[in-house]
Amino acid sequence: MDYARIFSDAIDRLHEEGRYRVFIDILRNKGAYPNARCFAGHNGPKPITVWCSNDYLTMGQHPDVIAAMEEALHDVGAGSGGTRNIGGNTHYHVDLEAELADLHGKQAALLFTSGYVSNEATLSTLAKVLPDCIIFSDELNHASMIAGIRNSGCEKRVWKHNDLEDLERLLSAAPPEAAKLIAFESVYSMDGDVAPIAEICDLADKYGALTYLDEVHAVGMYGARGGGISERDAVADRVTIIEGTLGKAFGVMGGYIAADRTIVDVIRSYAPGFIFTTSLSPVLVAGALASVRHLKRSSVEREAQQRNAQRLKEVFADAGLPVMNSATHIVPLMVGDPVKAKRISDVLLAEYGCYVQPINYPTVPRGTERLRFTPGPSHSEEMMRELADALVEIWDRLELRLAA
Amino acid sequence: MDYARIFSDAIDRLHEEGRYRVFIDILRNKGAYPNARCFAGHNGPKPITVWCSNDYLTMGQHPDVIAAMEEALHDVGAGSGGTRNIGGNTHYHVDLEAELADLHGKQAALLFTSGYVSNEATLSTLAKVLPDCIIFSDELNHASMIAGIRNSGCEKRVWKHNDLEDLERLLSAAPPEAAKLIAFESVYSMDGDVAPIAEICDLADKYGALTYLDEVHAVGMYGARGGGISERDAVADRVTIIEGTLGKAFGVMGGYIAADRTIVDVIRSYAPGFIFTTSLSPVLVAGALASVRHLKRSSVEREAQQRNAQRLKEVFADAGLPVMNSATHIVPLMVGDPVKAKRISDVLLAEYGCYVQPINYPTVPRGTERLRFTPGPSHSEEMMRELADALVEIWDRLELRLAA
Repeated sequence: MDYARIFSDAIDRLHEEGRYRVFIDILRNKGAYPNARCFAGHNGPKPITVWCSNDYLTMGQHPDVIAAMEEALHDVGAGSGGTRNIGGNTHYHVDLEAELADLHGKQAALLFTSGYVSNEATLSTLAKVLPDCIIFSDELNHASMIAGIRNSGCEKRVWKHNDLEDLERLLSAAPPEAAKLIAFESVYSMDGDVAPIAEICDLADKYGALTYLDEVHAVGMYGARGGGISERDAVADRVTIIEGTLGKAFGVMGGYIAADRTIVDVIRSYAPGFIFTTSLSPVLVAGALASVRHLKRSSVEREAQQRNAQRLKEVFADAGLPVMNSATHIVPLMVGDPVKAKRISDVLLAEYGCYVQPINYPTVPRGTERLRFTPGPSHSEEMMRELADALVEIWDRLELRLAA
Repeated sequence: MDYARIFSDAIDRLHEEGRYRVFIDILRNKGAYPNARCFAGHNGPKPITVWCSNDYLTMGQHPDVIAAMEEALHDVGAGSGGTRNIGGNTHYHVDLEAELADLHGKQAALLFTSGYVSNEATLSTLAKVLPDCIIFSDELNHASMIAGIRNSGCEKRVWKHNDLEDLERLLSAAPPEAAKLIAFESVYSMDGDVAPIAEICDLADKYGALTYLDEVHAVGMYGARGGGISERDAVADRVTIIEGTLGKAFGVMGGYIAADRTIVDVIRSYAPGFIFTTSLSPVLVAGALASVRHLKRSSVEREAQQRNAQRLKEVFADAGLPVMNSATHIVPLMVGDPVKAKRISDVLLAEYGCYVQPINYPTVPRGTERLRFTPGPSHSEEMMRELADALVEIWDRLELRLAA
C-alpha cells in the first residue's frame, strides 16, 4: 500500500481543479477594523482592508467585549479545565445560556464549542432519540447540518431550496406515524437569501413535524434585540429549536441551541459532541455574554451594517459588476470559475490591498464559484468606490464580462 | 407523535439509572488554584478545592499564558471572524502550528477547535481518502475517536485494550492489500494506564499499517519538552499522526494533529469539521503558544504534578481507599455504582468543600463508576490528608468497604 502516493494524489486533484486552498495569513488591527496586516508573499506585514470577515458587526473589537474578556482572564484564567460535567461548568456558562434562552424566548439554551458542533451534535442526537425519525433537509443546508443528519443514520429527504411545494410533497408522502424534523437555515450565507420560516412552520404544524432552524448568519443581525430572522418575523415561538453562533455577529467563538427545557436536557445528556469535549473557555463565554447583552440593547451596529451592505450592492451594480440578488447583508459577486475567482482575489490582495477570499467547491456548488463581500459598519464610501474600481480593472484584465 | 413524551422518557431513564448529570457551577480563582468558588445549592459562592480539573499543570493560570492572551486581545480582538480559509487564518495560528510540529518532530501540524473535533475530523477523513481502509481501534478509545471511525463508514476491528496479541491476530487476518490504520491513545484517562507504543509501531511496520496516536492526556505532561509519551519513549518518529489538545495540560482550548506535510494538507483540504467552522479565537491561540513554549523549556510543573499524583496514591492506599492501579498522573478510586459515586461526590462537595465529579456511563463502562482525582502542582500534603480523611468518613457512612 503506497500511502504517500494516495495522499499526494488527493492533493494533486485539488491543484488540477484549481481549488487548492491557500490560507491568507493576517492580523486584524483592533480599533481600526477593517484594517489588518497581511503576512503573505512579501517581507513584513502589509496593510490591507478586510472584505470577507464574518465578524459582521465588528463586535469582536467592541470595548465591552474586550473588557469582559480581560476581566474573566484575570479572574479565572485561560481555559475551563474540563468538560461541562467534569470541572468545566463555570458560572459564565450558566449565565450565557440563560441570556441566549431569553434572546430567543425559549426556556433553555446549551453551549457548544462551535456552531458546527452544535448542528452536528444536536441533529445526530435528536434523530437517534426519536424513533424512525425522518429529517427533511433543505438542499442548501450547511455542511455541519448535513454531517449531523448523515451521522444520525436516520432517513433523509432533501427538499429543493426554500421550495414550500417540494417540502409539502415530501412531508405528505411520508408515513403519518413517523417522527419528522424539518431542518433549514434562515439566512443562506453564500447567496444571502432568506427562508419563509412562517410558512415552513405552517407545514410543520400540518404534518406534525418538529423544526430546526440554523440562524448563524442572522443572530445579532436581525430583530429588535438581535434574535435573528425568527425574531424579525415574530415566529421564534413556532420554531422547535433555534441554533446560533457566537463566532459571527457576536464576534467571539462558539455555538448554541435554544429550545424547551426537556429538549435541551436531552441533547445535554445524550450528545457525544457536547459531553466529551472541554467546554468553551470562560474568557470566550464572558466576551460572548457582553456581546449578546450589548446587541440586545443596541441597534446602531445592525443598522450601519445594513446600510453599508445596501450601498455596496448599489456601487457594484452601478459599476456593472455581476452582483447576485441577495435579500440580506451578504454581497456575492458571481464568477463561475474556480481559477478566475482565485485569480481575482490574488490580484485584489497583491495589487490593491483588498482581501476577499474566493469561495469555491465544496463551500458552493461547482460552476458557481464567487467572491463574497461582507461590509461592516466601518467600511467607508471611499473604500467601496476603490474596491469597485479595482474590480472593474481586474474584470477587464481577465476578460470577464461586465453588464452594459 | 407525542414528541414531549419521548423526550421526557429519555430523561426519566437517566434518573432511573442514577446517572442524570448535574453540572457543578464554579469559578476558579486565578493565582490561587486549586481554590475556586462554587455556586451550587446555597446562597452566594462558597470556597472549594478542585480535585478534578484537566488543567493538570495549572497552565491556564500561568502568567506567560495570561499575558499572551491579554496582548492578543488588545492587538487583534476577540474572535478570528472566519474559517481558516475565509478571513480566520491569523498569524498566531501559523506560528502555533509550527510550534506544535516542532514539539512532535513532525513536518506540519493543524489546529482544530477541540480535541474532539481533531479526532472526529481526522479519522473520518483519513478513512475516506484511503481506499477500502480498515481501522484497528483499541476498545477503550475515546468517544471522539469512535465517532470519527463510525462516521467514516469504513470497516472497523476493535482490539482488546492494550493487547498486542489481539491486535496482531486482527492485523494478520485482514487482507494484505487493504489500507490499514491503528488508532489508539497513549494515556487512557479514566484508568491511567499507558499503551505500548513501540510494540504497536512494530506491528504497524510488519503489517503495513499507519498509526494514529491520541496523546491528549500526555502532551505537556511527559517527555523532556512535553511532547507526550511518544517523546518520553522516543517513538514519535515512528507514529504517523500524533493528536493532542490545548485544553488540558496546556490549559487553554483547542486540538491539533501533527504529521508529515502531505497528510496534514489532505486533512486541511478535505475534512468538513476543519473546513466549515470558525477558527480558534486568536486570543486562545496566543495563550496556547505561550503555554507550549513554556512547557518545552520548563519541567518544574511536570515534576511537581507527578510527585503530587504519586503522593496522593500513597495517601489513599494508606487510608485503605480502593485506589486503582495507574501508571500515570491520574488517580482513580473505584466505586462501581453510579448512585454511590454521585452520593460520595455530593457529600464531599457539600460538607467538605472538595470538588470531584463522579464518572459514570457513558464515560466509563457501567459497573466501573468511579471518582477520578487529578492533583496538580499546587495541591498540598495537608489538602491530600484532609481529602483522604473525608473520604474514609464517607466510605464508612455509606457502608462501602475499605481495605484492611
